[in-house]
Amino acid sequence: MKEFDLIKTYFKEQSVSRKDVLIGIGDDCALIAPSEKQNIAITTDTLVAGVHFPEDTPPRAIGHKAIAVNLSDLAAMGADPSWVSVAITLPNVDEEWVGEFCTGMFELCEYYNVQLIGGDTTQGPLSITVTAQGLVPHNQQITRSGAKAGDWVYVTGEIGGAALALQHYYQKLTLVPEVLRVVQERLDLPMPRVLAGQALRQYASSAIDLSDGLIADLTHICEASSVGANIILDKLPVPAEVLQVLGTEQAIDLALTGGDDYELLFTVNEDNKVGMETALTDMGIKLSCIGQLNGSQKITALLNEKPVEIKAEGYQHFVDGV
Amino acid sequence: MKEFDLIKTYFKEQSVSRKDVLIGIGDDCALIAPSEKQNIAITTDTLVAGVHFPEDTPPRAIGHKAIAVNLSDLAAMGADPSWVSVAITLPNVDEEWVGEFCTGMFELCEYYNVQLIGGDTTQGPLSITVTAQGLVPHNQQITRSGAKAGDWVYVTGEIGGAALALQHYYQKLTLVPEVLRVVQERLDLPMPRVLAGQALRQYASSAIDLSDGLIADLTHICEASSVGANIILDKLPVPAEVLQVLGTEQAIDLALTGGDDYELLFTVNEDNKVGMETALTDMGIKLSCIGQLNGSQKITALLNEKPVEIKAEGYQHFVDGV
Repeated sequence: MKEFDLIKTYFKEQSVSRKDVLIGIGDDCALIAPSEKQNIAITTDTLVAGVHFPEDTPPRAIGHKAIAVNLSDLAAMGADPSWVSVAITLPNVDEEWVGEFCTGMFELCEYYNVQLIGGDTTQGPLSITVTAQGLVPHNQQITRSGAKAGDWVYVTGEIGGAALALQHYYQKLTLVPEVLRVVQERLDLPMPRVLAGQALRQYASSAIDLSDGLIADLTHICEASSVGANIILDKLPVPAEVLQVLGTEQAIDLALTGGDDYELLFTVNEDNKVGMETALTDMGIKLSCIGQLNGSQKITALLNEKPVEIKAEGYQHFVDGV
Repeated sequence: MKEFDLIKTYFKEQSVSRKDVLIGIGDDCALIAPSEKQNIAITTDTLVAGVHFPEDTPPRAIGHKAIAVNLSDLAAMGADPSWVSVAITLPNVDEEWVGEFCTGMFELCEYYNVQLIGGDTTQGPLSITVTAQGLVPHNQQITRSGAKAGDWVYVTGEIGGAALALQHYYQKLTLVPEVLRVVQERLDLPMPRVLAGQALRQYASSAIDLSDGLIADLTHICEASSVGANIILDKLPVPAEVLQVLGTEQAIDLALTGGDDYELLFTVNEDNKVGMETALTDMGIKLSCIGQLNGSQKITALLNEKPVEIKAEGYQHFVDGV
């Protein structure tokens, strides 16, 4: 098992060195000095090869994604990402693979000043579990449960691109190279919406990151907040590439049900609407208001101003067009 | 994948509810309120089926062990265990298995007032990654690097029992049922030395938990502290069952090289020796002084007052008896 110790050499090559990390990699535990003015948000996500990413995904993308999906959870709570612990299980140690994996991981960590403080390296079927921690000023966390009827529903960026890349991978369709390149990057190298999450502390009544797909994640907010939602499907920010390949209706279905985009879905009350839109637009963040919450406890939708039925697998026109 | 959501129902059944946990399981992140007077120790350990435990280990033991090995790392730093995140990857959801796993996990968490604050449940080959966090008063952490030449080397409890159980499992020998019962419990249900670790904050110059075996872990301390050690092999606290089955020499070899005991190995300077022995003995903790550190940068050993050679695979008498 000596070769697994080699990985620790790679892990120590990070360039981030935070003042609040008293002891990093190399002892029984890491030791951090928490700030008195902030709480700590903690999240854990596992990526299993063949389940959460195709087996032949480039190692740099796997390293990036393992960090990204966790920072995305921190972003959804409005936290400043700070420290990560990485447990990696590998069938064998391929130094080139490990080097590429670490490159993907550290590029994203450096961008957000996140320090790798520890982890574990074990032999077994490929999977990665990251625990990420971030700081949130007192009483400024954004939860899933703070939404109210009347709040507006927003989504950052575009949704559906990552799901289209997966459809190509599973040979449900074949994309031309220039389209594939764009959506493959959405799947492999999602950028967590950290800055948006931080800005939203001031404005959002609730937030979640889009990992399971819009319907599933909106349902999480509605259940946690005891509200319903009406979504205007025409407003969904579907990438041009997805519209071009699938046409409007199938593109909307994919945007509703496809996961892996790691955009933020959030809600804002009427009073905060303009302030939030100004703040996020000034930061260069694409925003779409896709609907409004209500007291109905269910999710409804309009397409071309006509009601359509929302289901787990997408939407369906009502049989009689009502 | 709906059945994996079921696990979250089990995860919510814990009885521990700490005041410093503002948000527990169920949102994008957990949220904790750190204390101003304490730093936070963080450790991550993965257990892979077939590598870290036999595939047919009872699920209650797996749940216990996943928590225990992490609390053991916290103990080695002198931390009060506080919060755990548990990522479990399962080939399929067997409710009885999950229930037993949670029982093992929560029994130990409750004993130490540790709250499960989150995690992930995914489908794949069986493995468990736990990230455990604990609190350490400022400047009271015990590290691997604080040992000095002249310090005494101690070990808690007994060592070699877990390794004997593994030898039976891998059919290298056959144990009679009454011996197997004793050593199997050492392997399956190790008790992390949390209270000893807390007490040692006042006394120890360094500490590590015995997961890889005495030689390997003592080497970690010697390397981190730039010291050597001389060990009196006759003083190793080998369980009566191991001595009885293997005889003295083989029993010592197993105690030197066998892992999985999760006892603490620590060092204490001359001035703290009596105070430490009194404090730990009063707590009912078995203690053995097994040697002393020196400036040699290597590990030497005596058996029956004669020098023997220490190797990774155990010890060997010098060819000429010197």
